[in-house]
Amino acid sequence: MTAIAAVQLDPAVGDFDGNRRKAATAIAEAFAARASIVVIPELATSGYVFRDRDEARSVSIRPDHEIFAEWARLAAGARDGAGVVVGGFSELGEGDEVHNSAAVVDASGVRAVYRKVHLWDREKEVFTPGKAAPPVVDTPHGRVGVMICFDLEFPEWTRIAGLAGADLLAVPTNWPLVPTPPGERPAEQRIAVAAALVNRMAIVCADRFGRERGVDWTEGTAIISPAGVVIAEAGPGRGAATADLDLAESRDKRLSPRIDLFDDRRPDLYGRLVHPGPARGV
Amino acid sequence: MTAIAAVQLDPAVGDFDGNRRKAATAIAEAFAARASIVVIPELATSGYVFRDRDEARSVSIRPDHEIFAEWARLAAGARDGAGVVVGGFSELGEGDEVHNSAAVVDASGVRAVYRKVHLWDREKEVFTPGKAAPPVVDTPHGRVGVMICFDLEFPEWTRIAGLAGADLLAVPTNWPLVPTPPGERPAEQRIAVAAALVNRMAIVCADRFGRERGVDWTEGTAIISPAGVVIAEAGPGRGAATADLDLAESRDKRLSPRIDLFDDRRPDLYGRLVHPGPARGV
Repeated sequence: MTAIAAVQLDPAVGDFDGNRRKAATAIAEAFAARASIVVIPELATSGYVFRDRDEARSVSIRPDHEIFAEWARLAAGARDGAGVVVGGFSELGEGDEVHNSAAVVDASGVRAVYRKVHLWDREKEVFTPGKAAPPVVDTPHGRVGVMICFDLEFPEWTRIAGLAGADLLAVPTNWPLVPTPPGERPAEQRIAVAAALVNRMAIVCADRFGRERGVDWTEGTAIISPAGVVIAEAGPGRGAATADLDLAESRDKRLSPRIDLFDDRRPDLYGRLVHPGPARGV
Repeated sequence: MTAIAAVQLDPAVGDFDGNRRKAATAIAEAFAARASIVVIPELATSGYVFRDRDEARSVSIRPDHEIFAEWARLAAGARDGAGVVVGGFSELGEGDEVHNSAAVVDASGVRAVYRKVHLWDREKEVFTPGKAAPPVVDTPHGRVGVMICFDLEFPEWTRIAGLAGADLLAVPTNWPLVPTPPGERPAEQRIAVAAALVNRMAIVCADRFGRERGVDWTEGTAIISPAGVVIAEAGPGRGAATADLDLAESRDKRLSPRIDLFDDRRPDLYGRLVHPGPARGV
């Protein structure tokens, strides 16, 4: 069993040093509480509601920034020395580009950086979208895939992570609060539940809290089993969702000797998904 | 608004004439109750738990069978004369092939036949899988897409129906009963909810009841709004889920002026979905 922790944080926009301390404290606490894999929110080091690209750039860093060495030291201090951190940051790219990125860090340092591909709303004015598939990183606990927030709402993207072998999909998020009908989970969780089910893949979403420039957040941090059940939530405010998962369970895509969720796909018939075509029927 | 009815029936395996009467009665009742679109289960005319292909063939029909003329007459008797019936049947195909099919019928006759592409478990020993995308049929009420049961669990397939312009996805099903954790909806409904959300498309699933050769059924007949909310269910036993839906709502894929669930897709990056490749990571 692997102990997973998803930490709900309240980064402050533009305050890199303060956010760095908050993240380090939260990561250290999670490893001290015996977690092996710790996920923190999207843009945890920078905050989210930027006025413009310049403001985002002012708190953007490259993957060789010393904060990741700090996360690596914390990961080395995990119970088994094999801690893994997945966290969002604003990345300084080529030229003046800024990316909404997430890093996978273990005791050896940065294992992968992912740049968000599906940008949400005003992010399109701030960030340059990524061009690469979600990475899947082999760890002693299992294979950890990574994507960010709105990416999760494209079943093509979660499927690609599943096909690439992700046992656990780690999803740093900032889910702006929108109305949810009584008795229903937030829409993002309902989408994550199905992504887990159809791919038999565990999913962990680390959301944020703390009003920022008028935006409230869903505070929907959750861990979802490969059977599509929300097995832990952080609840409102600062906190964490924690759960023990057998990530090996994600490897078996069979529902019966004659049913395999991946082998039963019909890629020969899915061409419409990759042809631009008209966006909708006529 | 369009009145939708999904009828939960108990076809008996091999009893074509009895099943035909049950279906006709249920369709007539739904139109009499002012429905405009009526969906009945998968294999409603044949039953499901066949011993083998020969038994299935014995109750298989072609799309020119008079039962569809009967459904067309019932559709003509709908409140506005523009009734639509979607129902599953065992189809006699070319040679000795048998397909798990669904027909879309209106007053003019059979508008489309769909052959199930993703076969479930022992269906693989009985049926020949389809080779064509889910049809999307233009009706006075909106565009009705069709797929069958397990098809719904492949987000590629529901997306293809969405991209083809389906406002309402009609899904005849036979959901064998499997354990569901307390407090959770059946897995198939959880998957349908997300398919509705990510495609902003209404979904109606007509399930069956009645133990058949030791198999029990989920009795999960449900109507799901484009906002991913289950707005009507049939409950256990014979019954129907009914709801009024504004199918025009499915046409707008925008969540904000800067977010469009279809335009925000990145088909240029989805190639992995159509390349056979290794089924899973290494």
